Amino acid sequence: MTLSVDLNADLGESFGPWPMGSDEALLEVISSANIACGVHAGDWDVMAQTMARAVRSGVGIGAHPGFPDLQGFGRREMQMPLPSAANLVRWQLGAAQAMARAAGGEVRHLKLHGALANMAARDETLAAACFEGALSVAPDLILVVLAGTAQQAAAGRLGARVACEIFADRAYNPDATLVDRRLPGAVIHDPALAAHRVLRMVRAGAILPEDGTPIPARIDTICLHGDTPGAVEIARAVRAALTGAGVAVARFDGVPLV
Amino acid sequence: MTLSVDLNADLGESFGPWPMGSDEALLEVISSANIACGVHAGDWDVMAQTMARAVRSGVGIGAHPGFPDLQGFGRREMQMPLPSAANLVRWQLGAAQAMARAAGGEVRHLKLHGALANMAARDETLAAACFEGALSVAPDLILVVLAGTAQQAAAGRLGARVACEIFADRAYNPDATLVDRRLPGAVIHDPALAAHRVLRMVRAGAILPEDGTPIPARIDTICLHGDTPGAVEIARAVRAALTGAGVAVARFDGVPLV
Amino acid sequence: MTLSVDLNADLGESFGPWPMGSDEALLEVISSANIACGVHAGDWDVMAQTMARAVRSGVGIGAHPGFPDLQGFGRREMQMPLPSAANLVRWQLGAAQAMARAAGGEVRHLKLHGALANMAARDETLAAACFEGALSVAPDLILVVLAGTAQQAAAGRLGARVACEIFADRAYNPDATLVDRRLPGAVIHDPALAAHRVLRMVRAGAILPEDGTPIPARIDTICLHGDTPGAVEIARAVRAALTGAGVAVARFDGVPLV
Amino acid sequence: MTLSVDLNADLGESFGPWPMGSDEALLEVISSANIACGVHAGDWDVMAQTMARAVRSGVGIGAHPGFPDLQGFGRREMQMPLPSAANLVRWQLGAAQAMARAAGGEVRHLKLHGALANMAARDETLAAACFEGALSVAPDLILVVLAGTAQQAAAGRLGARVACEIFADRAYNPDATLVDRRLPGAVIHDPALAAHRVLRMVRAGAILPEDGTPIPARIDTICLHGDTPGAVEIARAVRAALTGAGVAVARFDGVPLV
Repeated sequence: MTLSVDLNADLGESFGPWPMGSDEALLEVISSANIACGVHAGDWDVMAQTMARAVRSGVGIGAHPGFPDLQGFGRREMQMPLPSAANLVRWQLGAAQAMARAAGGEVRHLKLHGALANMAARDETLAAACFEGALSVAPDLILVVLAGTAQQAAAGRLGARVACEIFADRAYNPDATLVDRRLPGAVIHDPALAAHRVLRMVRAGAILPEDGTPIPARIDTICLHGDTPGAVEIARAVRAALTGAGVAVARFDGVPLV
Repeated sequence: MTLSVDLNADLGESFGPWPMGSDEALLEVISSANIACGVHAGDWDVMAQTMARAVRSGVGIGAHPGFPDLQGFGRREMQMPLPSAANLVRWQLGAAQAMARAAGGEVRHLKLHGALANMAARDETLAAACFEGALSVAPDLILVVLAGTAQQAAAGRLGARVACEIFADRAYNPDATLVDRRLPGAVIHDPALAAHRVLRMVRAGAILPEDGTPIPARIDTICLHGDTPGAVEIARAVRAALTGAGVAVARFDGVPLV
Repeated sequence: MTLSVDLNADLGESFGPWPMGSDEALLEVISSANIACGVHAGDWDVMAQTMARAVRSGVGIGAHPGFPDLQGFGRREMQMPLPSAANLVRWQLGAAQAMARAAGGEVRHLKLHGALANMAARDETLAAACFEGALSVAPDLILVVLAGTAQQAAAGRLGARVACEIFADRAYNPDATLVDRRLPGAVIHDPALAAHRVLRMVRAGAILPEDGTPIPARIDTICLHGDTPGAVEIARAVRAALTGAGVAVARFDGVPLV
Repeated sequence: MTLSVDLNADLGESFGPWPMGSDEALLEVISSANIACGVHAGDWDVMAQTMARAVRSGVGIGAHPGFPDLQGFGRREMQMPLPSAANLVRWQLGAAQAMARAAGGEVRHLKLHGALANMAARDETLAAACFEGALSVAPDLILVVLAGTAQQAAAGRLGARVACEIFADRAYNPDATLVDRRLPGAVIHDPALAAHRVLRMVRAGAILPEDGTPIPARIDTICLHGDTPGAVEIARAVRAALTGAGVAVARFDGVPLV
């Protein structure tokens, strides 16, 4: 049986007159796109264009909801009551569904953005509120979760379809958390190194900390970036390394956690 | 066969800490609710609450999209390219669909709000862009149009399901346009008078200008207001007059125009 | 020498079509107004009207900056870098100064709003960033601070003009913090009781916890509310009790802390 | 006596995570900067940075207010009542003054942005409302106006300090209006040609239409762009042509129109 993994990236993060990212280049690399929903980034016109591109490229379409903080790009933590967080996710998911449908596509997954994702990775209650909000709109939605976090725990408990994600360009601690960005080596800039690590983790079925023993993990998708210098090169290198080693790049199928 | 007509009103126009309107009172009067979509008014929490109330009351749920102008409540005209107008409507419709679904309901109609509605009543191209945008998301959607305007023409040409609307509290010119708000008698404040006029128009199947001859018109729904003093009294009086005269109040069924 | 104290309240918290508060009634009671700056509440038109009213009433004008979170009314905590918090305060202060000037007035004080105020009451670094931001625009500005909190400490360390504030309608803990809103007796709803407590605290020059010994405190101003049921009655009762007991109600003069 | 002219450009049009323009490059070319005020573009952090750069470079600082339409970058026409337009301008001017002051500078001029500028160029009443709004905050402000338009007429009638502006990269019609962007030759892309035309117009003291006779005009400042490909090259070529021909590049002094 062929080993297979998905590659995902955030798209549609332009806003009004302000472009962002390398969407066209990434669409040739990834198999799933997380599309901003017009709240922390994106707008209805950017979404329309991005959905059309995603449909044309045949990548899986995902909603990528974030906090209502455009200036902060959804990266500043905000304290919201749980029902508000659920409504926030519902609302953005619905907008994404409509824009996808009008472009001839369908939203098949959802991935939380920025500070909302970070908070939900620590706080299972928040993760559950967001995910239940999404599932109340679309019960068959696949939830992309950060492997080994409270996001994964919440999605598992809900019995939802899930895709577990690791990062291509971030080093891991022995407890499966990410190494603090401010520490040396935390962010991997070398495409060859990033590609090599991803391939090893996918083959091992485990997160591989820099120091410490492998942590067995379901790895369904690799998170790639497009908005930093060299990001597209890393993305291409990861894809090339995987396919060169006989690992297929294909959309996750969203098997629920056991 | 019993004569039947729908009563509609705008709901869910609160925002954050700011309440607006008399939603609970109107829900006992109307058969269809036009629910703000979080752009000119409403937010995800207001929408969640309003959708839940609408489902409980059994009224037909409609999306009520408007211009991206919260401070101006969508009442200031904005010049947007037609594809942007279509995207704006799609996006809001999608958000409304998600919030409705999460509350156990479905969006069955759409009515444009404020300056967007006024501009689309004059400009068939704009009306068509908005309506095509909506139908590309939900082909079975019923379009609520201002009777006798470019909105109706556009919806007719699209072959869409339609409900034609008149106002309970506004006087009409001989050409079926509304009398300018600034003229005496343009706005009807007396509940008994408003109710009487509505009943006459529904029975006549015609718009009845103050001066001039009746203008035959399909009348599927009566627009009621809830945000002005006395508005709820007018709404109740209209309903009482209709039902007292044997006219059923029921959701429009959205028969396409011939 | 006559004992004198200031009464302050938040004004100008309407937005677009949504009214809030009892500004006209409060303007007859207070001596200083904290005017929302168009970010968490208020807009340029609301500010223009509120500034004109404040000038007419002769109350002291204050800027009341908050977090960029209109839907949450600035009441949700947001994590911002310190320089951003300073810029946020500067920007809102400038907008308030312009609107005051155009109305023939001047901004003489500043009071932080909502979650920004709460966070700055706990975090002296944040309070200092906000206050330094404000003073870099207007060095003579009077900073209204929550008595006994990190806000007061920051303002003291900066050598700024200061007015120390207590609440008319909130019970205090033995350590001068506010009793948790969810506990019985935390919020005082009885106008006579609120008025009596304020008079006692002003005369004592101390915060008086429900249980425990008086905590000596400089009390320059009493915070009144206008947006809850009965709030205007409390405001009037406080003023009547003070003036009836010979305590003058007058603007704070902003003497720096020693 | 040396001939002298000002060069102006829009700066500070980034927003949150989205960069725009070539501010650093333009600051070496221009003598006056029009800085976005956080409504159609810019935010408090972008403004703080831009003001600091402008102070360091010694360019004249201007407020550049626009419509409340971030997604549309203030380029979509909006219908606002005149008092609202005045308040909108006041508010943004105040924010700019505060940010300038905190950076050690002062706002000395104001130029309307985008659709607001276009509408005010056609409608003297709107121009007057905007300019009176600004002068009510800062009576000595210099108003940068589009030469030969209703903006100039309004500023002249108000007796305000004024700087009259022409475009470096746009062709003029025989009646001094700009050639429609969609016509061939309307936008000048060749740096040498743009520079040559500017030099001729400055020397002639006249707008020079492609066809037709020179239109005598006070030319105080040349509008340069920074956000289109080649724009910085045009800006540099204009400056080089002027200084090479002995025309000094210096801030306008804002002499009122006679």
